[in-house]
Amino acid sequence: MRVGTPVSLEALTASIREDLEGVEHEIRRMLAVEQAPVRDLMEHIGRFSGKRLRPALTLLAGRMFGELTPAHRTVGAIVEIIHMATLVHDDILDESRMRRRVETVNERVGNETAVLLGDYLFATAFKEAAALEDRFPSRYLAEVVGVVCRGEILQIHHRHDFELSEATYFRIIEDKTAALYAAALRCGAYLSGAPEEQREALARFGMKMGSAFQVVDDILDLVGDEDRVGKSLGTDLEKEKMTLPLLRLLRRLPQTGRERLRREITEGEAEHVRETLLPLLQEHGAIDSARETARELVQAAFAELTIVPDTPERTLLRQSAEYVLARDR
Amino acid sequence: MRVGTPVSLEALTASIREDLEGVEHEIRRMLAVEQAPVRDLMEHIGRFSGKRLRPALTLLAGRMFGELTPAHRTVGAIVEIIHMATLVHDDILDESRMRRRVETVNERVGNETAVLLGDYLFATAFKEAAALEDRFPSRYLAEVVGVVCRGEILQIHHRHDFELSEATYFRIIEDKTAALYAAALRCGAYLSGAPEEQREALARFGMKMGSAFQVVDDILDLVGDEDRVGKSLGTDLEKEKMTLPLLRLLRRLPQTGRERLRREITEGEAEHVRETLLPLLQEHGAIDSARETARELVQAAFAELTIVPDTPERTLLRQSAEYVLARDR
Repeated sequence: MRVGTPVSLEALTASIREDLEGVEHEIRRMLAVEQAPVRDLMEHIGRFSGKRLRPALTLLAGRMFGELTPAHRTVGAIVEIIHMATLVHDDILDESRMRRRVETVNERVGNETAVLLGDYLFATAFKEAAALEDRFPSRYLAEVVGVVCRGEILQIHHRHDFELSEATYFRIIEDKTAALYAAALRCGAYLSGAPEEQREALARFGMKMGSAFQVVDDILDLVGDEDRVGKSLGTDLEKEKMTLPLLRLLRRLPQTGRERLRREITEGEAEHVRETLLPLLQEHGAIDSARETARELVQAAFAELTIVPDTPERTLLRQSAEYVLARDR
Repeated sequence: MRVGTPVSLEALTASIREDLEGVEHEIRRMLAVEQAPVRDLMEHIGRFSGKRLRPALTLLAGRMFGELTPAHRTVGAIVEIIHMATLVHDDILDESRMRRRVETVNERVGNETAVLLGDYLFATAFKEAAALEDRFPSRYLAEVVGVVCRGEILQIHHRHDFELSEATYFRIIEDKTAALYAAALRCGAYLSGAPEEQREALARFGMKMGSAFQVVDDILDLVGDEDRVGKSLGTDLEKEKMTLPLLRLLRRLPQTGRERLRREITEGEAEHVRETLLPLLQEHGAIDSARETARELVQAAFAELTIVPDTPERTLLRQSAEYVLARDR
């Protein structure tokens, strides 16, 4: 299988539209709170309504092996709420002001409430997982949240680390981003009783697709259009997060250029850093190189699909990965 | 039963010392991480080792109805790790620098890592709860964490609210503090197969004891000795949290005095606010009044114990409540 022309997200999810609506219903049910201040915050959060990529993966993986059940929709909603919790906390860490064209929680009500709201979302997700008849999702998803946090802590630990190896970079993005993609797929397949070998192949597909997603995210943070992406950009650079394009550029610069760039990033004004960096990234092909890596990750993800049933869902999963690669928002 | 002379925490927990060591062992097991940055943070967190009041309540409630099991020790450890997670996040919200005579996580490694470490601790607690054979603790404790967060969000919502009613104040402290005491006791009794009526009586005991604990905490934040308490004090005032002594004072001041104090708290320098406030609190008996309320809460907690078995553990629970009332740290 080769990387093809990406289809729109709407076309991609048309066949599971009803079940995705079921997921929305579950999300609304889980976020319904009576108490006024939390209720208002939940309504605000609801306006972030994202691409729902992760629940779509749970549904596609599930339908590949049989009929979807209410548990699929519930787990899809739980995975999305875990994702929302990490976004609320990430926006604090990144001091982001905008998310999906809406004020972030920290911007709207301050960091303190944002910390607590993220905690509340995690607790909600765990409560719903614990209420499921099958025990696998609750046991597994709590572990995955731990992995996500470890990845983020490792990333902060390596901030300002201009010597960061690509091996560690990929470990960080697998933990902080891709693990939740893998989890969405693994849970979907598990709930449909998929054979272990195929379930694990789907999890590996998710790991690679999720890594590609993060590399594209790294690229968008540098060269994306803030209006189109709908969230604060440039925060990686401001926070001196080591993204793949930056690592590639550092490797390609001569010693003196590397030193100069390091000083510029560490000491320069944010706007000026961007102005210096963008032409350098272009000149040394660092963005193209990172994009090529994302493409390779998607190819590697495709390879994992060879052992799963040749169903319409498999095609849709392949197209989801293509969508991730091509997205500009 | 009347409030008696408090015994030391050591004397109180002597009879469950071995099981408390089992809890420590479980906590160490749960916090063991291989990956370097998280491992170092866990070691730092380990130095906070607190009073372990909540696990002691789980063990005492459990032993009141039979032999303790490994699940009691595990749940005791889970409750303590949930408590630790809330402390790590609270210290960010309060901008605290010291906790149990050790630097707070935010002071040591910054707010960002502290947010993630708190998340990691919650995830660890939920993972361990989900791994238990009995499903009650995982279902119930996730709900309790939600209640704790709601209480804290409500508290922040009512910051600077000089008109806060005492009814809302008590609702806030029940949610943010007392609910976890109630949970520690309810889980302990549940795991020993206690009859529902007695289990619920113990939960109500915990609710009242936990509320008393928070009122004493409010008082210590104003008049405690920072060296003795071992944590940053005065943060309630700096954050304009409405504590019980302050609410009592506001109620007792004439309109003009209330207005003057409100301006002072809102606009004054922290050190100066404290200097103005302390004599006012004394003069109007606001500290004594709050202390009397804590005593009444402990008396009300005792009343809940009349229907539970008259065992040595019941005496120890009573003494725990007395300890909470008398503590100066």
